[in-house]
Amino acid sequence: MSRSIPDTEPSILADLAAASRILAKRGVVDAFGHVSLRHPVDSNLYLMPSAQAPALTTPGDIITYTLNSDALNSGTRSNFIERFIHGEIYKMRPDVNSIVHSHSASVIPFGIIKKPMVGTFHNAAFLANGAPIFDIREKFGQTDMLVCDCAKGIALAETLEDKHVALMRAHGSVACGKNLQLSVFRAVYTEVSARIQTATVMLAGSDSIEPLDQEEGRLADAVNDTACKRAWRLWRNEILMEVGW
Amino acid sequence: MSRSIPDTEPSILADLAAASRILAKRGVVDAFGHVSLRHPVDSNLYLMPSAQAPALTTPGDIITYTLNSDALNSGTRSNFIERFIHGEIYKMRPDVNSIVHSHSASVIPFGIIKKPMVGTFHNAAFLANGAPIFDIREKFGQTDMLVCDCAKGIALAETLEDKHVALMRAHGSVACGKNLQLSVFRAVYTEVSARIQTATVMLAGSDSIEPLDQEEGRLADAVNDTACKRAWRLWRNEILMEVGW
Amino acid sequence: MSRSIPDTEPSILADLAAASRILAKRGVVDAFGHVSLRHPVDSNLYLMPSAQAPALTTPGDIITYTLNSDALNSGTRSNFIERFIHGEIYKMRPDVNSIVHSHSASVIPFGIIKKPMVGTFHNAAFLANGAPIFDIREKFGQTDMLVCDCAKGIALAETLEDKHVALMRAHGSVACGKNLQLSVFRAVYTEVSARIQTATVMLAGSDSIEPLDQEEGRLADAVNDTACKRAWRLWRNEILMEVGW
Amino acid sequence: MSRSIPDTEPSILADLAAASRILAKRGVVDAFGHVSLRHPVDSNLYLMPSAQAPALTTPGDIITYTLNSDALNSGTRSNFIERFIHGEIYKMRPDVNSIVHSHSASVIPFGIIKKPMVGTFHNAAFLANGAPIFDIREKFGQTDMLVCDCAKGIALAETLEDKHVALMRAHGSVACGKNLQLSVFRAVYTEVSARIQTATVMLAGSDSIEPLDQEEGRLADAVNDTACKRAWRLWRNEILMEVGW
Repeated sequence: MSRSIPDTEPSILADLAAASRILAKRGVVDAFGHVSLRHPVDSNLYLMPSAQAPALTTPGDIITYTLNSDALNSGTRSNFIERFIHGEIYKMRPDVNSIVHSHSASVIPFGIIKKPMVGTFHNAAFLANGAPIFDIREKFGQTDMLVCDCAKGIALAETLEDKHVALMRAHGSVACGKNLQLSVFRAVYTEVSARIQTATVMLAGSDSIEPLDQEEGRLADAVNDTACKRAWRLWRNEILMEVGW
Repeated sequence: MSRSIPDTEPSILADLAAASRILAKRGVVDAFGHVSLRHPVDSNLYLMPSAQAPALTTPGDIITYTLNSDALNSGTRSNFIERFIHGEIYKMRPDVNSIVHSHSASVIPFGIIKKPMVGTFHNAAFLANGAPIFDIREKFGQTDMLVCDCAKGIALAETLEDKHVALMRAHGSVACGKNLQLSVFRAVYTEVSARIQTATVMLAGSDSIEPLDQEEGRLADAVNDTACKRAWRLWRNEILMEVGW
Repeated sequence: MSRSIPDTEPSILADLAAASRILAKRGVVDAFGHVSLRHPVDSNLYLMPSAQAPALTTPGDIITYTLNSDALNSGTRSNFIERFIHGEIYKMRPDVNSIVHSHSASVIPFGIIKKPMVGTFHNAAFLANGAPIFDIREKFGQTDMLVCDCAKGIALAETLEDKHVALMRAHGSVACGKNLQLSVFRAVYTEVSARIQTATVMLAGSDSIEPLDQEEGRLADAVNDTACKRAWRLWRNEILMEVGW
Repeated sequence: MSRSIPDTEPSILADLAAASRILAKRGVVDAFGHVSLRHPVDSNLYLMPSAQAPALTTPGDIITYTLNSDALNSGTRSNFIERFIHGEIYKMRPDVNSIVHSHSASVIPFGIIKKPMVGTFHNAAFLANGAPIFDIREKFGQTDMLVCDCAKGIALAETLEDKHVALMRAHGSVACGKNLQLSVFRAVYTEVSARIQTATVMLAGSDSIEPLDQEEGRLADAVNDTACKRAWRLWRNEILMEVGW
């Protein structure tokens, strides 16, 4: 607490709180899960709501953390146990400025099977170069599955490597982006693409499908840099209509 | 009626009625199903709503029952036929203080097949040590499938044994917990995990999946003791906003 | 129009119009489909809404038909092309007093495959003695699939025989009951059971499942005679809250 | 802009904007996708909303385009990148007066597998004569998947040929009709039929199903010319109730 905390614009706090509610509204998070943002002023800090159901988040719930995931101003508010996911990815990935951690029902199957997620269509192009699986057992043996300290966060970040999405065995997933709009977009379309892939495999088996190839994925994902703004405008507006911020 | 009935705090009655509506809102129950609570003052009694669609339950509908499932104060209100599920489990399982009985659509398949439910992720960790199937035919032959007396309730409780969830062939399931929040949480995540497992099997078959192992399940389920409070706060708040209690 | 039409109690008209909206609200019908009621006063007549999306039906839209499906008081209102489904089943089945025709998405698959629907749980017990498939091609060759005259209605009724539900190849299904509450209940739980059976087959294949056997089905369906009233109270109340009748 | 633009009746603009919202409400489009209408006065022009999430479209957002997809009156409003889909189909198909482009989740699988869509029931009869797959790779190699110029629009239109629906590999689909009501109806029931076909294949495999044959499809699709008006009345009314136009 001895460190001075840079100011954050109210609109940033509102957008981050709205992102929590957007993810809840679209079924990516339920009572659990979280979204964070690297601090716009100090890249060695990040912003994240206090521990509660994302659908209840307000701008006043946003806490500032160091990249070691120490809270600078939590006060009486609780910290998410798994905030280390965020801090350690921010450390290892300077290109990432926003992260979503979720347990969305359509994505979890891909973390407990051996067949890879694919990019089923252009909006899910960021999956075309793969989504590695983090199995916490490999380094930490029998655990409660939670990424509850820096060491586990580092292991997850190492699995993520340079990808946009990592799956977590019997737990959930992580989606990253260079800004809040893109990480939310990727979390949503990871869920959508998981549903599409499941239906595709049911129809045709795993071997005969023709999803995006790597180069198509790279080209289409570039378009999503702007496409995500259009989705954000729709989703952000829905929250604004409901809560007035 | 000759027995004196201990008072119940209004907030307990409201929470139990709200639990009925939470389960309806989240698709665990439809027009049928019920949730009960061991009496907080007298452990030889339990509280349960009168027979009606759970979405219509109010605090004034809660009836007090003996563990033999005799109503102490039903008056003109109807008793659920299957209340014996609750009474007999409370008798056999002193650690259980709340029970949900439901027929949720994603769970029923697991009662009519031979492949076991697994714990697909940490929130469903309570399934990692198994969910036994109660087949009413084994002891009672051809019936209307209902657990409508003590003998059938005992048979179900014996199948449940020391587990948290029991499946009922061609009928539904039961989820238990040491408190109301935990039984509701387990009922919800049994449904969620059933959906996840179904998608997983579609993607990869039954043999190659890697769900929680038993020890991971035990460790992760301990976390759910507190996680269920966070979910409850969200779900309870939704009901409060709707009905004002 | 020369025939005098017996009066119908306003509450009957309201209930039948509400049934249309209940079926729409629960996903059994979309913009199409219809529910009818044998006339409570004259068993040689039946009541059915005019041709429009069920979700828009009001009590003032109910028309009286002869069992030949001639409208007695349609006036400027349109008749459903497929009203012959209703008239011909009422003729052949004196035990049936209400019929639902729908194209619900989970049920249609069972009309275009060779594997029978089963009773997956007690609420769907009426399926345990089978749901025959009406293939309009067999008698009528290439058609627009619609049951648009008495001859086609008779053929469908003959396929239905003494069952509660008939499937119509590449079209939809019919659910019958001795009263309005029961036909609506059966239409809803045919849809629910279809979803459950689909998931079950995905999990375990068709051969190893253990649904209700015939005698269990018979016993459990008797309970649904009263269970359907509880569901109706919930569903009817939802419509009342919305439209005030 | 030098060309004079024919007037469009306000009710046409309102209906086209409402069509965007209908498609969003029914899950055919999410933040993306678009619907257009050939200009009722000048068949060498078409009307289409400006680039934004369809659920936000208002009558004031409708832009007039030439069949080369040059905007005549966009002003400060953005044009959809993929408007060339519309212009080129209008050029090649004088019978088509309205087009929907969408990425609905149940349809995408059919664009990345080799098994054809079928007409699962009468409302999807327009699929009985096939839905060809446009694979942009064949002519254009590695792309961002978007139909972003006339050449790509022509290639898509050539794949569509005389059909009502074309699938686009790893992207989405296109549905056409002779009027707005029919293109919207076909977009909705392409999605519904995709879901039904997926469930059917899960239940029975691809080989043993009995969907509409070609002649049944032709006959049943003729009925949809009027059926789509009934669906439109329901769907249009929902939007009217929400936005007042």
